[in-house]
Amino acid sequence: MTQPTEIERLIEMMAKLPGLGPRSARRAVLHLVARREGQLGPLARQMQLVADTAQACERCGNIGTAALCPICADPARANGQICVVETVADLWAMERAGVFRGRYHVLGGTLSALDAVGPEELGIPTLLARIDDEAVREAILALPATVDGQTTAHYLADQLEARVTLTSLAQGVPIGGELDFLDDGTITAALEARKPL
Amino acid sequence: MTQPTEIERLIEMMAKLPGLGPRSARRAVLHLVARREGQLGPLARQMQLVADTAQACERCGNIGTAALCPICADPARANGQICVVETVADLWAMERAGVFRGRYHVLGGTLSALDAVGPEELGIPTLLARIDDEAVREAILALPATVDGQTTAHYLADQLEARVTLTSLAQGVPIGGELDFLDDGTITAALEARKPL
Ligand SMILES: [Zn+2]
Ligand SMILES: [Zn+2]
Repeated sequence: MTQPTEIERLIEMMAKLPGLGPRSARRAVLHLVARREGQLGPLARQMQLVADTAQACERCGNIGTAALCPICADPARANGQICVVETVADLWAMERAGVFRGRYHVLGGTLSALDAVGPEELGIPTLLARIDDEAVREAILALPATVDGQTTAHYLADQLEARVTLTSLAQGVPIGGELDFLDDGTITAALEARKPL
Repeated sequence: MTQPTEIERLIEMMAKLPGLGPRSARRAVLHLVARREGQLGPLARQMQLVADTAQACERCGNIGTAALCPICADPARANGQICVVETVADLWAMERAGVFRGRYHVLGGTLSALDAVGPEELGIPTLLARIDDEAVREAILALPATVDGQTTAHYLADQLEARVTLTSLAQGVPIGGELDFLDDGTITAALEARKPL
């Protein structure tokens, strides 16, 4: 046995994070172990705090530390616009662009016949209820330009078109691209040039 | 405020790890928050455990969870060979190759006139004391092929040549390469073909 079991175990756990592998996990752990008091301890405690408090917003699916996320808890964000995104990462990417001042709905996936993901799994009934509850006038569909993403957008359009103005992000989002990988300027431009469905 | 402060803070802390940046830190945190019970909580507790128990081995400088690391605590590793490395990452890389059965001495750096790093800072007096204490017959210098690494190797050779057989890793380690980036086979070959200084 070379490394103590505790450190080996930490490396294995870090190696499971997206974007890390065994080598980068080793480097990260060595870095942290050399900074036990200044970095490792505080990081451990912050993780525990988030593990203890993080929860999905019961309204929109964003991640927060209360029943309602900061956006849903802010009355100023009830401006009649709702932006439908696939993932929390996409919501954060929209927020980084900083132009959209309405609320979100995180589907947590897209409709997929193959994977048997239906409207219920994506919280679409909740979204429909929110249209009335929050007096939504415009729904901006910011879904991926994939087959499943566009299938989902069409399904939502069918459900919503009688009740709200539907828009989607303008061309500018590259085909097959993910919001989370775009720069803020591209997101801003696509949002400002959004077009009716 | 988009993300709750606690999560924002965790992302900032993760982004400081080597190999991660703001984007990969966000992805890692989202991944963990979606797996609070299965991954985030256990990772937090494992980090805290390591933060509470990890320490530098008082003899060789390896990282362990006791005064002596597992290698120094193992009497079978007192085989008369000591391998001098720059970093704990290099020690781990040697161990992964799995051929060397002696002990190590981690300098924690290399001599550098520019940075005013002298023999004391690198624990070289401790290394000299270990030669007698542990009946070392051969010292294998596995130091980087950089100017400072080779300066350090020459300094150690001067100090040690009257008392032990000195060897260095064979050609095979690329110029300017770091042990931690080499595959195990290269390290094994270089170790087996080590040559007298
Ligand atoms: Zn919310
Ligand atoms: Zn040791």
